[in-house]
Order: sequence, then C-alpha cells, then structure tokens
Amino acid sequence: MEPHQVKRPRLEARERPGLEARERPRLEPREWPGVEAEARERPRLEPREWPGTEAEAREWQGAEAEARDRQDGAYFHSYSDVSIHEEMIADSARTGCYRRALQQGYWGRGAARPGPQPGAGVGLLQGRTVLDVGAGTGILSVFCAQAGAARVYAAEASVVMAERAREVFEANGLSGRISVLRGRVEEARLPERVDAIVSEWMGYGLMYESMLRSVLHARDHWLKPGGLLFPCQAELFIAPVNDPALQERLSFWAGVKEQHGVDMACMAAFARRCLMNDEMAVGALHGEDVLARPSMFATINLYTVTEQQLGRLGGLFTTSSFGIATMHAFAIWFSVIFPTSARSDSASDNHATTSTVDGRQASRHKDDGQFETSTNSDSRRASTAFASSVPSAYTVNPTASSHCTVTANGGNLQTFNRCADSHVAFDANADECEPVVLSTSPFAEETHWKQSLLYLDEPVQVFQDTVIKGKITLTPAEDNPRHLRVALIYEIGDSGKQTKIFKMGEDFSSYD
Amino acid sequence: MEPHQVKRPRLEARERPGLEARERPRLEPREWPGVEAEARERPRLEPREWPGTEAEAREWQGAEAEARDRQDGAYFHSYSDVSIHEEMIADSARTGCYRRALQQGYWGRGAARPGPQPGAGVGLLQGRTVLDVGAGTGILSVFCAQAGAARVYAAEASVVMAERAREVFEANGLSGRISVLRGRVEEARLPERVDAIVSEWMGYGLMYESMLRSVLHARDHWLKPGGLLFPCQAELFIAPVNDPALQERLSFWAGVKEQHGVDMACMAAFARRCLMNDEMAVGALHGEDVLARPSMFATINLYTVTEQQLGRLGGLFTTSSFGIATMHAFAIWFSVIFPTSARSDSASDNHATTSTVDGRQASRHKDDGQFETSTNSDSRRASTAFASSVPSAYTVNPTASSHCTVTANGGNLQTFNRCADSHVAFDANADECEPVVLSTSPFAEETHWKQSLLYLDEPVQVFQDTVIKGKITLTPAEDNPRHLRVALIYEIGDSGKQTKIFKMGEDFSSYD
Repeated sequence: MEPHQVKRPRLEARERPGLEARERPRLEPREWPGVEAEARERPRLEPREWPGTEAEAREWQGAEAEARDRQDGAYFHSYSDVSIHEEMIADSARTGCYRRALQQGYWGRGAARPGPQPGAGVGLLQGRTVLDVGAGTGILSVFCAQAGAARVYAAEASVVMAERAREVFEANGLSGRISVLRGRVEEARLPERVDAIVSEWMGYGLMYESMLRSVLHARDHWLKPGGLLFPCQAELFIAPVNDPALQERLSFWAGVKEQHGVDMACMAAFARRCLMNDEMAVGALHGEDVLARPSMFATINLYTVTEQQLGRLGGLFTTSSFGIATMHAFAIWFSVIFPTSARSDSASDNHATTSTVDGRQASRHKDDGQFETSTNSDSRRASTAFASSVPSAYTVNPTASSHCTVTANGGNLQTFNRCADSHVAFDANADECEPVVLSTSPFAEETHWKQSLLYLDEPVQVFQDTVIKGKITLTPAEDNPRHLRVALIYEIGDSGKQTKIFKMGEDFSSYD
Repeated sequence: MEPHQVKRPRLEARERPGLEARERPRLEPREWPGVEAEARERPRLEPREWPGTEAEAREWQGAEAEARDRQDGAYFHSYSDVSIHEEMIADSARTGCYRRALQQGYWGRGAARPGPQPGAGVGLLQGRTVLDVGAGTGILSVFCAQAGAARVYAAEASVVMAERAREVFEANGLSGRISVLRGRVEEARLPERVDAIVSEWMGYGLMYESMLRSVLHARDHWLKPGGLLFPCQAELFIAPVNDPALQERLSFWAGVKEQHGVDMACMAAFARRCLMNDEMAVGALHGEDVLARPSMFATINLYTVTEQQLGRLGGLFTTSSFGIATMHAFAIWFSVIFPTSARSDSASDNHATTSTVDGRQASRHKDDGQFETSTNSDSRRASTAFASSVPSAYTVNPTASSHCTVTANGGNLQTFNRCADSHVAFDANADECEPVVLSTSPFAEETHWKQSLLYLDEPVQVFQDTVIKGKITLTPAEDNPRHLRVALIYEIGDSGKQTKIFKMGEDFSSYD
C-alpha cells in the first residue's frame, strides 16, 4: 500500500452531521440572470464607494480587514496539522517534479541518482539566493540548498510549521544556508533581493486558497529583475467528462431491490439532486472518462500577472464529443511549468514553448474518440499539447473576453524591469534541460489535487461530434477571498445556453 | 467494486482548512487531576442550582433549550443528504441483520430466499403494530410490513427524508399499511400503543448522536407492556490494539530520505503528537490487530435502561496481552442483539443468552497470541462470546463502579409493567429462530461503524501476559449532548495509572 492510501480514515458522512443538505431550493438555470447580467446588477461595494461618513468608511474597512486577518489566521492554522504535509510529500508526482525542476542541471542528463554527476552542467540554482514562499516542512528549501543555492530564505506563516522546518534544516545539516522567516511573507524583511522564488501555491482548481497572491507580493518586492520563478507559468484546462464513481452512486438505488428486497429506485432522483449540486467537487478521473478534447481556457505568466488579473480568471472553450457517452460534469485541472534556463527566454517564449512542449504531439485524437495509449511521460504532457486547441472563434461575449486569458506578454516584462536592481543573468542552458511540467490532468499520474468537478444538474447524453462550448470564470468568493466561485455558461449540442454558479470552500457548520 | 467504495471522494485534508491543529498545548497525563477528581472539582451547573433570580433562571433555561433545539435541528438536517443513507443501506452487515431480525420466522429455517416458506413459522411481526423511530428512507418499516405487520408508524424528524420514505412506501405498494409521522418522535401522537419498536439508533462508539434517548422516550410512551424492541440489548467492548494504518503513517517520515533525498525523520514526533491525539477516531481493524482478549465493559438492556443511566455508561476491564506487540490504542466497539421470541424471555434471560450465544465458544485463545481462524458466522459472534471475560475483581474506584454497568434486570421489568395497557404476548418460538446479533467487532464483517479508536499518547510495547486494565466512562459532551466524551483510566503493565479524556464531535470550524 502507498503511504497516502493508509491514512487514518477521515470522518465519514455519518460523522459529519454539519454537511449541508442539498434539498434547499436552488434557482433553476433558466432563472439565473446570467453571469454578466448578475455582475452588472450587483456591483460589489468597494471601500471607496462607501456612501456613509469617512468615519463609517474607516470602521467598515477595519471590520473587513479584521475578517481577512481571521480568515488568514485560520488558513495558516490549517497547515499546522501533519496530515496535509504528509499528503503533499507523499504525492510523488508533485514532490518529484519540484525536485527535478529545482535540481535540474545539478543532476547529469539521464543520471540514475541525484547529485552532481560527471559531465553535468552547473545547476540553475548553483550559488544563487532563493526565497521559498510558504515553506511548510521546508522540503523545497532543502531541494534548493542541495542544488547548490548559496542562501535560502524559508518563509512560513504557521508558527508550528516554521519550527518543523527549522528541525528539518538542522537534520539535513543545512541550517547554515537556510534561514527560517517566521510570519507572513508580506511582512518579511529580507536582507537582499533573491535570484529565484520557489513556491507550491496551487490549490484545488488551481486558485482555491489564493496563495498565489502572496507569491506575487514576494515577486514584486524581493525578486531581482531577471530572477526565476518556480513555477513560472500555469495553465487551466476544461473538458466534458463522464464520472464513473458518480454513475455508480446514482445506480446504487436501483440495486437495493435485488440486494435487500425493497424497491428504492425512486431515491435515484433525490441522489441526483444531492450529488449533482453546485459545490465544486474533487475526484480522480482517468483519461477514458474525458469525453472530448480538453480546452486550455487560461494561461498565467507568473512573471507578469497582476493581482487584479487573478481576480477574474477564465476564458472561452469549445470542443466536440468523441462519441456516444453520458456526460456528468465539466472537469477542470491545471499544469504548472518550471523554468529551464534564462529568465528572458522563459518569460517571453513561454506560450510558444508550452504549445508544443518539445516538438512532439503527445496524444492524438483518433476516430473512435479515444486517445492512443502513450507512455507515461507523454501522457503527462498531453494536456499541455492541447494548448493548440484553444478556441478563438466561439465567443459568448466578445467584449468581456479580453480580460479572461492572461498570456505571456513581452511588453509587461519591460514594465517589471523597472526595478532598480541589477539584472540577474542565468546560463542559457535550455538545451541541457528538459522542460519540467507538473500536470494534474486525468491523462497524467494521479496527484493529490485529482481533478475539480463541476456537475451538471443531471446527466446529459452526448453523441459523436456534439458541440460543447462555453465560458468559465474563476473568481474569489466575496465573503472569503481564499474560497472560490466558478461561473460556468455552457451549451451542449442544441440544448440552449445554461448557466451554473459553483462554489468551493463552504464552511463546515456543525450542529452546535 | 462495492457501491460504498466508490463514493464521490470527500474533501481531503487540504480541502478542509478548518481542521483543528494538534499543536496547542495539551495537559500531560500526569497533570490531569483524574476523572473522578475532575468530576468533583467541576460540578455541572444544573438548572436548579442557578444562583440568580428566578427570572434569570428561566432565561438561562430558555437559552439552553434554544441551544438544544438548534443542535437537534442541525442533527436532523444532517440526515437530509443522500450520502449518509447510501452508506447505511450499502452496509450489508447492518441492513441484512435488521432484515433477518425483523423477518425471522417469516422466512423458513434455512430458506434460500426471503418470503413465507412452506413449513415456516409465523413471523414475529405477523399482524403486529410497529413504530419505526428515525425511519430515514423507510427501509426498516418496509421490512416490517413485508414481515406481515398490520400497521407501521414511520417517525422521521427530517422533512426531506419523511418525504423520501413516503415515496419508498408508495413504490413498494405499502402506503396503506405504513403511516409517515413527520416530526420528532417525542412529539408524535400515535392512535395506539404498538407491539414493537424498531430503530437503528447506534452511532460511533454506540452512543455518538445520542439517538437512543428518543427510542427510550418512544418505549415509555408507545410500547405495550410485553412489547418487543428491535434491537433489545446492546453491549460495549474494549481491547488494546495495534493500528497498522497509524503505524504506517508514523513510519512515513523515515522513508522520505529514500524517496526524495531529504531526511525528515524528525517529523515523526510531530506526526505522533498530531495523530495520537484526544479525539476519538474511527478506523477499521482486523482480528489480528487485537492484542488481548476483549472485555465487555457495559451491557444495556433496552427494555429497562433509563435516560439517567445512559448519562454515565461504562465499566472496568482487565485483560493480558497475547504476546510481544506495539500497542497504539484502545479500540471500542459494540454489538446489538435482536429479540427472537417472547418479550419476557428476551428481557430477563438476555445476559445468559448473550454470554454463550448458542453454546459454542466462537474463538479460542491460542498460545501464539492469535485467534484461530473461524467461519465468518462464528467470528461474527466472537465478541459476544467474550462476555464471560467481564472483569469483576479489578476496581479503580469501587464506590463509583456500581452505576457503570447497566445489566439486564428482571426487577426493572416489573416496574416497566406499571403501564395500564394489556400485556402483549408473543409466541415463544425461540427454538425456531437463531439469535440475530449485529456485531461491529474487528472479528466480524466490517460495518460502516468500523471501530472507535482511543489513541495512547505514544506507542507502548507490550509483552506476553502484560496486564492491561482500566476503567472507561462514556458521557454526553457538556456543550452538546449528541457529542461524546470518553474518560479512560488505564494501566499497562507496571507503567502506572494514566488518564486520558477523549472527545468525539468537535465542530468543524472553517476559516471564515
């Protein structure tokens, strides 16, 4: 058994009496005024719009800041338990990918074991300074120090974990080169700007937890011009899927007659209402559950993206189904890409790079609607290879789409280079390193992120070449910016336009 | 795959940022003043002890009643989702056991299929009236009606589930014989007293959820003298155990060096503090994880037990380990026993009956510390067979132990028979029916209750014949009587007396 499969069982539904009931009336799609209309009709009240006195405005801002502080405190606190760190480190796709990305070059090409190899290039981080944002147990900081970093700053807001990281650095004989910065990275005072920032900030559906904002803050304050970000780019994908686990749960009730002699088939409709709800779910799919070519609906260049752009992330998608199947949901997942060489190269050429990876098309669409079997390393990059299928013709609202896709932009790089610090130069050793991509695609090795599922209200039959198109927008929840709200406008065949708003991060209210 | 294995994955730790951190300082065992001392030092303030004015007292009582109403409302609400009902019905040990118990006699002995068989006796419920307390989807009510009950009252407090039950009764053509009573059973007004009450009220560690109180209320108000309770008896067991899943999680950190090249062995101590905490956990063990002969520490005769007695349930235990092993926890589990024939027989002779089951000793202790392999039906009764090992000599506090074990008591039966109704007589057909026992023992088929785990503060090595003894007390939590508090005083070998207080039912506070 894998370590991550044998954890202490978590509380079962029976034990979590606070689970929200699904029965409360929900607006039917036809009753939704539409995302755009809704956005117009209910403008968010920004502090500057406060209609009262200045004193009231200050009080209101104070209350909001207090709520954010409380939310942040609880968020950092949530990382003070061992389980979440065990899950992340046991996720070998994740941890191994970060290790390869941070220690590339330091390992020889095709080296059987880590460490400096005869004939290996000098590692990207050799002699560099690095800031680790949200260090947790400190494992990424150790990877950096092992790769030859001269100095690593490990910033960790959880008091408990900062102490754990300190112990880990000492156990690995690296206390001399890694400094623990206890507290929020936004309040950290480093003695110098750094050559690179590393962070594992990705949440479910990429944006849950909103930790990326802290990374951007660190980038703007502590990264030298030309410095590297690990990872440096993120991509979001969407595809229509069949969910076999859901299907089996919906079918369960028809089988009770056979098993226990009671006809409970009528429960299936209730089960559907409960399970195909408006909460973004997390589930592990496989490649064969994907019903059409996935669409990349957003690319984030971490060197240039602004916090404002993160506030409304999304894009259009269009695809057509491979064959006859039952569609339960749209699945979304992400990939992140690590820099392989000099900053200027990775920043301005990212988009082209990620569209073709290394020149090979990893998966090909066959007439029977299935993907060809490919090697694991190929399928890992399958989602990236789909970048070429990003739609450009289909548009829900042409005027609204320009803000949705944040792509690499050489122009922004110049803006970023306004910093007065001297520009740091990295060896252009791209030809020595393979691009490192951490993919959470259903075609890749399963990660602890699995995939995020946006269920339709009921299963829908699709046929060969049924056109499935729409628009997806990810925004932070209004009441807690670390939570996530997903607005999905979609059309399956000629069924007409549907809209469904999903949330992730509901409070677990208990019955006390 | 079994249906209950393929549910939609629940939120992972990463997704449940509200999980309590384990790092906050906890009193070490030596700092605990001891359960008895604590009970003396912090007397619970009963309403009658309120030191203020009468108006204040009324207000205080009103606030408490309001809190209870809110807790109850949330509790009933928690059963309005499909997942909990799916889990319970998919638990075939549970559902099959209730079916056998309710339809016994109605099925012929050794019948291959359910239903009236040639030569079968008349079912226990043939022509009887039944009250189903907490009917949920109504499956137990259907079992009763199928067994020939003349009238079934299905009481269900969740509005959502009462409607589901109505649909199920209609789908099974039983609307004419089953009446849905929507609301709390405490407020139900039945047109008649009933011959039998059926309920699946058992929570984790038997007493979590505290639903038994509602069953006792129904018993006292609506069961005819001599009427049957399904189940009619409950037994609680405790045993020292090794938890292989916990062991693997504690060992995980020593393996990170091999897997990822970073020495993280120092994390193991943190993992131990996080995982071996003071929350009662739920985990599935197997017979080989049990390190000593289990002790039955409490028996509840449902015909006679009072709500007051349920408020402090527990008893003494003593056992000795089979051999060298690492002990992580005490596990507790329960069995419930169903009536097989006339009420008077089952009420007064239960204890003797359950000590020997059907005259066979199901599992025998071998010198190597393992149980002999036995058939499934034997091992299902293994825990019951252990009843003969209930301790009588070892006493932590002799004066406090008398209230702890609620045993069958013929005298109480007479008290109960004060009711003015005519006594109902059941056929004494015990020789036609095998006793039906639903066991959640690690030696029996796994149920959705699994076992409840009370972790020590750290693993302890035991040897052959290490004496392990103690006292366990289950009480409702002060702030929410549906939650559970377990006080454990124990001694392993000559390590000295330890005390640890566990809770189950912590609120899931989220970070908003």
